[in-house]
This record gives sequence, C-alpha cells and structure tokens, in this order.
Amino acid sequence: MVRVGIVGATGYTGLELIRLLRRHPHVEIAWLTSETHAGKTLSQVYPTTWDAPLQPWDEVTLAGDEVVFLCLPHGASADAVARAYQAGCTVVDLSADFRLPASVYQRWYGLQHKYPDLLAQAVYGLPEVYRERIRGARLIANPGCYPTSVNLALYPLARAGWLSPDIIVDSKSGVSGAGRKPKLTTHFVEANENLSPYNIGYAHRHIAEMEQVLGDAWPEGGHPDVIFAPHLLPVNRGILSTIYIRLNHPRPPEDVYALYQSTYGDEPFVRVLPPGQAATLRHTQYTNLCVIGLTPVDERRWIVTSSIDNLVKGASGQAVQNMNIALDLPETAGLEE
Amino acid sequence: MVRVGIVGATGYTGLELIRLLRRHPHVEIAWLTSETHAGKTLSQVYPTTWDAPLQPWDEVTLAGDEVVFLCLPHGASADAVARAYQAGCTVVDLSADFRLPASVYQRWYGLQHKYPDLLAQAVYGLPEVYRERIRGARLIANPGCYPTSVNLALYPLARAGWLSPDIIVDSKSGVSGAGRKPKLTTHFVEANENLSPYNIGYAHRHIAEMEQVLGDAWPEGGHPDVIFAPHLLPVNRGILSTIYIRLNHPRPPEDVYALYQSTYGDEPFVRVLPPGQAATLRHTQYTNLCVIGLTPVDERRWIVTSSIDNLVKGASGQAVQNMNIALDLPETAGLEE
Amino acid sequence: MVRVGIVGATGYTGLELIRLLRRHPHVEIAWLTSETHAGKTLSQVYPTTWDAPLQPWDEVTLAGDEVVFLCLPHGASADAVARAYQAGCTVVDLSADFRLPASVYQRWYGLQHKYPDLLAQAVYGLPEVYRERIRGARLIANPGCYPTSVNLALYPLARAGWLSPDIIVDSKSGVSGAGRKPKLTTHFVEANENLSPYNIGYAHRHIAEMEQVLGDAWPEGGHPDVIFAPHLLPVNRGILSTIYIRLNHPRPPEDVYALYQSTYGDEPFVRVLPPGQAATLRHTQYTNLCVIGLTPVDERRWIVTSSIDNLVKGASGQAVQNMNIALDLPETAGLEE
Amino acid sequence: MVRVGIVGATGYTGLELIRLLRRHPHVEIAWLTSETHAGKTLSQVYPTTWDAPLQPWDEVTLAGDEVVFLCLPHGASADAVARAYQAGCTVVDLSADFRLPASVYQRWYGLQHKYPDLLAQAVYGLPEVYRERIRGARLIANPGCYPTSVNLALYPLARAGWLSPDIIVDSKSGVSGAGRKPKLTTHFVEANENLSPYNIGYAHRHIAEMEQVLGDAWPEGGHPDVIFAPHLLPVNRGILSTIYIRLNHPRPPEDVYALYQSTYGDEPFVRVLPPGQAATLRHTQYTNLCVIGLTPVDERRWIVTSSIDNLVKGASGQAVQNMNIALDLPETAGLEE
Repeated sequence: MVRVGIVGATGYTGLELIRLLRRHPHVEIAWLTSETHAGKTLSQVYPTTWDAPLQPWDEVTLAGDEVVFLCLPHGASADAVARAYQAGCTVVDLSADFRLPASVYQRWYGLQHKYPDLLAQAVYGLPEVYRERIRGARLIANPGCYPTSVNLALYPLARAGWLSPDIIVDSKSGVSGAGRKPKLTTHFVEANENLSPYNIGYAHRHIAEMEQVLGDAWPEGGHPDVIFAPHLLPVNRGILSTIYIRLNHPRPPEDVYALYQSTYGDEPFVRVLPPGQAATLRHTQYTNLCVIGLTPVDERRWIVTSSIDNLVKGASGQAVQNMNIALDLPETAGLEE
Repeated sequence: MVRVGIVGATGYTGLELIRLLRRHPHVEIAWLTSETHAGKTLSQVYPTTWDAPLQPWDEVTLAGDEVVFLCLPHGASADAVARAYQAGCTVVDLSADFRLPASVYQRWYGLQHKYPDLLAQAVYGLPEVYRERIRGARLIANPGCYPTSVNLALYPLARAGWLSPDIIVDSKSGVSGAGRKPKLTTHFVEANENLSPYNIGYAHRHIAEMEQVLGDAWPEGGHPDVIFAPHLLPVNRGILSTIYIRLNHPRPPEDVYALYQSTYGDEPFVRVLPPGQAATLRHTQYTNLCVIGLTPVDERRWIVTSSIDNLVKGASGQAVQNMNIALDLPETAGLEE
Repeated sequence: MVRVGIVGATGYTGLELIRLLRRHPHVEIAWLTSETHAGKTLSQVYPTTWDAPLQPWDEVTLAGDEVVFLCLPHGASADAVARAYQAGCTVVDLSADFRLPASVYQRWYGLQHKYPDLLAQAVYGLPEVYRERIRGARLIANPGCYPTSVNLALYPLARAGWLSPDIIVDSKSGVSGAGRKPKLTTHFVEANENLSPYNIGYAHRHIAEMEQVLGDAWPEGGHPDVIFAPHLLPVNRGILSTIYIRLNHPRPPEDVYALYQSTYGDEPFVRVLPPGQAATLRHTQYTNLCVIGLTPVDERRWIVTSSIDNLVKGASGQAVQNMNIALDLPETAGLEE
Repeated sequence: MVRVGIVGATGYTGLELIRLLRRHPHVEIAWLTSETHAGKTLSQVYPTTWDAPLQPWDEVTLAGDEVVFLCLPHGASADAVARAYQAGCTVVDLSADFRLPASVYQRWYGLQHKYPDLLAQAVYGLPEVYRERIRGARLIANPGCYPTSVNLALYPLARAGWLSPDIIVDSKSGVSGAGRKPKLTTHFVEANENLSPYNIGYAHRHIAEMEQVLGDAWPEGGHPDVIFAPHLLPVNRGILSTIYIRLNHPRPPEDVYALYQSTYGDEPFVRVLPPGQAATLRHTQYTNLCVIGLTPVDERRWIVTSSIDNLVKGASGQAVQNMNIALDLPETAGLEE
C-alpha cells in the first residue's frame, strides 16, 4: 500500500481526495492536515462518518510517506511543496504554484516564484497531453479546472494545426470551484437561482494555462488568442465549457470527428460524443471523465462543448490519475469512468 | 407620503423592506443605513439597479421621519429602538429585543434587558391576534418567522381551548432566514442538495414566542408544551411548519374547519385550504400570506401545515402590515396576497 | 377598468400574467381559459389561493372585453388571434405566430401562415424599438424571450452601424422557459445540478427574431450573422445572454457607453450597468427590467451581458407593457423596475 | 464473475444499479431491459458514456444468469419475479410486490396477490434485521426507501421494548424517489424552491412496512401506531426522517446511546452519531449508509434523525447488499460507506 498524506484536507479538493483515496485499492491515507481545524477530527468539520485526526502541517513527520497531495491556495503552496519534495516524497500540487514559468506566474498571480530550481523539475499533469513526462515524476503541477476542460476540448485541433487563433470560451462552473471559505458570492441565497459572469474578457488567471498548453501544441509561429468568460452556476459540481472556434480551412465534419477519435480513442477518461450530441454536466459528475461534444455550424465554424466534474477531472481525480501514472499503478485505480 | 427609514438595510430583511416599500403607494424611503457598507450605495453591495446611499446610523437625522424599521441583530437593536422612539418616530423592530418580557428574554437570549420602560410600551405585532393593540402603537415588536407560521396555525384551536398541550412542530426554513452574513452552514455547496436539522428539541429561541402567544390564548390554568425541530432547507425563501397536535376531546372535522373559517374568514393575509389540501411553500412565496392546511388523522389527532414566506409574512411584509395598521393606512397597502 | 381575458392561463406565461394583472391598477381579469383543465378552478391546478374558474376558449363570450392575451403554443395561437381580433379586442399574442413574415415563419416553424392579412396588421411588440407602432395597435406579437435579451443588448450598436456581422450569443435560460408540460428534460432530477446546451449553432427558432430586429436596425447593405447556443439552466426564472461581438472600427470605450446611455437613458425598463459590472440573473428576477453590462476586451472586441426575467420582460411583463402602450395607460402600470 | 441482469434499467433505481454494479468487483452486467426504450442503447436515453443495448424483457434469455434485479412498478413486477425465479435465478425485487403478506398488500395497494406460493418464499431484505434469512435466499423483497430510514432508526428501541406506541415520522425525500416518469409534481419549476407535504397522516403505503418491521420486533402484545408525513424536497437524492418518540419509561440518555451502539456497532452500513449531532442528507449521499442521530428532549421524549440516500441504502445499494449476502460475497463489495 502506498502511504499518502493530504495537506489542506478540509477544503473541497481535500475532501474529494479523501473520498477517492478511501476506495483506492493501492493506497492508505496516512495523515490529513488542516491549519484552521488542527486538533479536531474530520467529522467535527464535515458531515462524514469516516474519521481521522487533523494535524498542523509542520507537525507531520514525512518519513516513509510516498505521496503528498497539496490542497493549499497558490502562494501558500510553494513552501509546502519544497518541504515534501526535499523529504523524498512524490508531490502532487493542486495549486497554481508550479504550473507556469516564473515570468508568466508573476504576470498573472503577481508573485515572484520562490523556487525556480524546483519549478524546473515540475511537470504539468495533464495526462492526455503529457503522460510520458508524468511517469516517474516527483513533482506534478495538477492543472486548473477550467483549463482542463478547455485544453482537452481543443488539443486535437491545436496539435493538428487546424485552428484559427480566435477562441471564445464561455464556461460555467459549479460553486465548489470557488472554494469552501464562506464569502458573499458563495452564500446560498446569493448563488442559488442566479447566474453570474465574473472576471470576463482577458482577465481570469486560468487563461495562462490555456495559452500554455494549446500554444505548446500549436504549429510553430502561431499561438492561440483566448477570450474567456467564466460564470458562477448554481450547482455543486461540474464545469461546462461552450467553446466557439473557427477552422483555418474548411474541412468536412468527418475529418474533425476522425481527428478526435484518433487522439482520444484509447484514453480511459476522455469520451467524444456522437455527432448531434452536446456535453452536459450530468455526463461527468462524480467521474474522472472529460466528455466532449462537437457541433459544426458551417464548414469552418464549430461549437465544442466540454464537461468535467471540477472536483474530479478538474482537481482531485486528475491528481489521483497523476499519482497512478507517476507511481506506475493502474491509471484508472480509484477512479470512475 | 410617509417618510420611512431602514436601519440595517443590506441584510435580507432590509433588502426585502426596500422591495416592498418601493411599491407602497403611501410611503417614501427617506434613508438607508449600513454600518458595514456606509459610504457606498446600495447597488455596490447588491445586484439592484434602484440605488440609494448607505449611511451610518448615528449620522441619520430623524427630524420629520415618521417610521423607522430596525433590521439589526437582537441585542444590537435595543439602543437604536430607544433613539428612534425618543425622536418621536413610530418604530417597527424586526429583532427579538422587544418581543418578550425581560425575564423570558434573559432566559432565552442570555441578556439583561436595557430598556424595561420601553419594553412596557411595546406591542407584539401579530395583527391577526393583536390588531387592536397595534393601532396607533409607537413601538411594535415584529414577530419571529417560525413563531408566525406556528402561532397563526394553532391560534384558533388554542383560543377555543380545544388543544392538548403536547405540540410537535417540524419546521423547514429557506436559507435567507439564516441571514446574509456568510457562514459555513449557509455556503452554497454545504446547504444545496442537503437538509439539516439544527437546535432541535427544546432548544431554539423561537419557542419562547410560540409559548407566549399560544399561552396567552390558552384557557386559564393551562399552557402549551412545544417540541420544535427546525431544518435548514435548500431554497431561498419560505417556511413550512408541519405541526402534530391532539385535540383534548374528539370532535368532528367539520367543527375544526368551521373554527378556522370563523377565525380567519375576514383576514386579508390568512387562507385556510379546503379539506384534503396541504400547504406548500409555493402557496406563499413573495406574498404576505399565511396559508394553512388541516389534515385529520383520526378523531383527535391532526396535522396542521402552515406556509409563509419567511421574508414577507415572516419579517418585512408583516412589518409593513404593522406600519399600515399603526398609521391607519389601508392594511394591505404595498403587500401581495 | 379594462376587462382582460387570458387564453391558456395555466401555463407559466398565463400564471405570470395573472400575478401581474392582479395588481395592475387599471385592469380587471374577466376570464381565464384552459382546454386541459376546463371545469376546474385555478387553485385546483396550481398552488394559489386566488381563485377563478377555467373555461374552454370556445365558450368565452368576448362582448365588452377589451384585451385578450394569448398564451398558446405557436400554430395553435393563430386561430384564437383571428377570433379575438375580429371580435374587436386588442390582442397580445405571446406565441410566435405573428412575429415574422410568412416566408420566414414557414422556414423556421415549418407551417404555412393561415392569416396573411392579419399578419400585415401585427406589430412586433418590443417597445424600446417599436414603441410608436405599438400605440393604438390592435394586434401585438409579443417577442420571444431569448430575442428580447439579445436585441435590447445589441440594438444601440446595430442601429449605429458599429457592429461587425459576426455575433456569438451564449444564452442560459431558467426552466420555466421550456413550458409547464412535463417532459423528461424538465424533470427536476434531470435538470437540477445539471446544465445542458440544446439546439446550438444555427438551429434555434429564436435566431429569426434576432436577425429580424437587428437586421432592421442595421445600416443598409448589411445584416447580422448570429451563432446561438442556448443552455437549460437549473433555476426557475431568468435568462442571461453572454454576447461576443466585434466593432467594425476601433472605438474608445467611452463612446460605447455613451451610445447606450443616449439610447436607453429614458427607458423605464432598461438599465445599463456602470463600467466593470456584468449583468446577473438576480438583477432582473420578478421585474420587467432588461439589465445590460458592457465589458471591453480590447479596442474592438466586447462582451455584452444581458439579463431579463424570461417570464416578465421575456413574456408576460412585456405583454402588459405592450397593452399599457397600446391602450395609452401609464407604461409602467402593474410592472416592477 | 456473477452474471446479473436489470429489468427496468432506465428508471432511477435501474440507473443507480448500473452505477454501482459497474464497479462491483465480482459482477458482470449481462443485460438491461426497457419496454419504453427497447431497441435503443442506454446512452440514447440517459447522458452516460457507458453504453449497452436495451432489450424487451420477454426477449431476454435467462440461461446462466445468476441474479436478476427488478426495477418495475408494483403490480407489474410480480410476473417478472415469477419468471426469473422459475428460471433458477436469484431475484432481488425492488418493487413492493413481495414485501407484505397478501392481506396487507391488498389493503394498501388494492391488488390481490397473484403468487401466494412465491410470496411464502420471499424474505424481506433489511440486512441489519433479517441478515440470516437473506443468506442463500432466492427471492428477496428489497425494502421501501422511507421504511428503511425509519425502521433502522427505531429498531433498537422497538426490539428492546422501550418505545411507547405513538410514533410520529416527518420525512423529507429527494425527487428521485418519485420516479423518472415526468409528472407535474416532479417538473423542475414546480418542485424547485418548493417543499410539499403529500399523503400525510395515515395514508402513505410505506406505513405498512414500518408497522411490519417494528411490530415484528415489538414485545408481544403491543404494536406501533405510526403517523407519517412525507414531504417532497427539492434535492435529487436523500431521505431525512425526523422521528418523534416517547420512551415507555424514563431512562438515562446513556442507556439509549448504549443500546444503539450494541445493536449497530458491527454493522458496516449503519452509523450512530455522537450525542449532540443530528443526521443530515450530506452524511449519506452516494453511500450505502444509514446515519442516525439521537437527541433527547427530556427523560422520555427523543427526536431521532435518520438519513439515507434513497437511491442507495433506500433502493439499489441495499439491493446490491442483499445480493452480496445471498450469494455469500463480501457484504460491502461495490458499495461505499
């Protein structure tokens, strides 16, 4: 059994990791940390009957632990990554701290990166694109939720060089994506029976990961130009991205479908819907799937719909998938399709 | 036009008062206060396009204002009541500070009452029971939301002396009843797709108002004995109370229906459903109605269902109704049935 | 008092008309029809305590009735319109039957128009664009919900000739927009905690009204080219349209804001938000408002957010507004801002 | 691998069985039936990417199948049970057809039982009470959802002979409990932001199973007297029962807690909360748990709160648990705690 620990276990991504890892056949949860609730047990801060003590992170002894999952806010995560990495653990960081080059990180997050050497070791944990790099990796930057939904939706076209740069992404996210800390925007009465756009235009930090992954796949000399409008949706879980694209040349729809099938046909966690179907949140909730719908408008314009569970494929499930790959466990262990 | 002001305008009862008073034909909103948001305007703290400045309460000049509505927490309200009352205003206090005798208040709220003289002037603003006292009153204690739903549901039987003391009240309230201040229990993800009992048994402060109003109507020598189980319900507005009672003598169902009709037949804001129907939240949302369903189980046991909108008849609408009565305006002005 | 009748009173637009007309100071509801529930009363088919009999439409005598509102499906509405019009009533038709020229109607709805002469009398009831035509009109085609949100959002730019033709509309609608007839897609468990795109691309019938109204305002020689992706949103009421546009020339943001202010500054039911704010559903629920947010992305690209309550400004409220204008009543009577 | 088939696979209990059985380590789903959708595949009638054909039941060949799950309405199920039983399969019937003696069944369901001999073979599949009878059983009547929540909550007290007969059960159920067939009461707009009592008093069929199981455990000469008020709750899954009981003698709270611990201490799917905590829906969603909270009001009166997921422990999960016991598989296989 692999011993794993979770830093920041009482937020939604931490709680979801617990849910997934409890049924993982090759893993044993060794410890949980919480700074706010240290000294209590999990059932005192969340309605669960599975229980475990909550420790402060600096009292955790790392000897013998193989995997550490970090569910901390960006900025706060980097120090903990460094400590766990230096203790010899395999680290899966769910924050943004190791996803981007230092200069890009500074531009979007306003922080100078404290660990450039460590950053050089980090791999971006989107298995469908970077699986080979993840094998055996010791530091995995787990992707953001919105970028996962968008990058998987467009990667085949970007890599094939079929896309015009202008990409419009209209995303809708369940409220768990906003974290568990109470705020007015996540108050039940404010979010319920409502829908709110926020940080729309070229403003949301997750654009950086979209431009990075798609740009990486893009033919030399070009790069994508993303407009992004996220919306807060009155559901607990799920992201649906409705993406408006233009092909750089007219192509028969069959070619587009074939491209996606050839890219994702063997992927355990990506499904391309038959022509005529669009992705919905229900397709993916509580699973590690990304489900993609392809709708042609005319010979160049398409609407791509992409659905993930923001807490699973958009966070904790993908983190488990990354651990499985890194440690050479079965990639689907503990995860649902 | 009556000039009115609202103290604590940015909580849910304050916002609902604004909604109701804006369309009241005899009222002009003169000012709004907010301690947290003083200096901003309403549209900066709530998604509305009707706008007005938010002042601190101690900068409000009361000259010429006729009515002051207080939407403050208990404890904090009493001082403001005193100031507005002494300035000659008619005061409608939505807090619990003037609803109960000082000794009962101390027992349930743990506070010694600071204004016993003023308390002696206060009338309990449940119009269907105390309408005559409310006419011309200068200080009205607006009832709590749960007690309004329960007291109107049982008042006819209590007054008639037909009730056994054992009363079981199972209430379900929308989240706006918990206030607008963000807390973990009112976080969207925690409350949505959930149902949580809280303070069940003989524990919730609102029991005091049930025992007071029903006890007041009860035949001499007796008093009700209430068990109360409130639940947090994943809707924005509404309270449904399902009440389990026993008659002290067997009676034909017709007598019970007739008793309710004779009590409430002329009331503008109480409706008794035909036999066979139970009250639902939908019956009353956005109205000032209390809708009551009467279901016999056998010749002595009944289930009474009672629905109100917690923000209207359970708070701000009843406050407007009280103002209308106190000032001899048409009782239904500004309110919907 | 104006006597009004509602044909098809037990669907959501009929029920909303009842809610609005009950508090309209110049109107008396004379009769309600329902084919499915004829012989019952309203409270037997909807949880309300305001009650009235439900008649079959062909038993209604129209003598003396001034206004007839038609809440029937397209196709079924045309005959009823003809009957009410010929009886001398002012007719507000909430269906699509009189919104489009016969050829366009046939193309999108697959039906040959039965009343081309009557169609020639009909005015399209979007008051902010066609107010003068509505005054005194006897047959008003009440606009569709999605087109109202989109047309009001883009009308200033279209009329000014500032828009590039490519318009992408990503709309999200509450479930009441899908009607009250039970279907699997509107089953609570299917729609709740879900978000579903449907009829996306160039497929939804409401595109016809967008192209018609914007095309009508467009400078000669051009016309808009709309991609439209509607989504079913798990809320009861409200439409939010997130619209991606490009100006045909770079312009300073101030010019765009000024254009909207000059177009809508005096409108009772349109509000343009201050720079930096986006429209949300909460801005408009239960009101007859359309609230518009303007967000620049760069010197040519903008995101326009537009919110209406689909049952009010998107249907029954706009129908009342149209009646008010047609009969020279105060335009805001019975409606909330 | 055990070969299993599901009759009526496209309702909510069928779909939930598919979800659970897909990850069951010892089971292979051999076939699915649907009368309404025969000829289609699952993904054509539900947003899933796991797919299988839907056959008509009478075209299914039963040779070699070991377990048949029946997800049919009562009345319709009995014939299918007979066919599968006679073919040698182990049958788990999720309908009410084999839960009650013929006379009781006739009284509550208005149907004469067609298979009295088979009924004599059936065991009532509540493992915590009847585990020994379930081992090796060939025909298991899977309990109703409400009775499961109530019977597990009260069984320790009933068996100990500590209960007064008067039991008041106030239950709230998610909408999936009402089935997947579209009806007005389960239309999103009707159920959302609403709460509706239905069949309250001594009227709901599930009372029969409560009286049967508790009466079976009750000391000789007595029997329970249940009032039951179910409510339709605007969530997808979960039942919360708030149960008001009276002990027949005053007892210290510790005795009650100890009684529950001794009854359920070794049960894999029942959890008794620590004193001071009440059960919520969140405790059990997506698990096969029943979570019980015990709240004393005074020395005789208690409020017992009981939470299950109506689709898991209240239906399909318990069906899997019953299959596991009957076939001597690990009892928790395929299920979550």
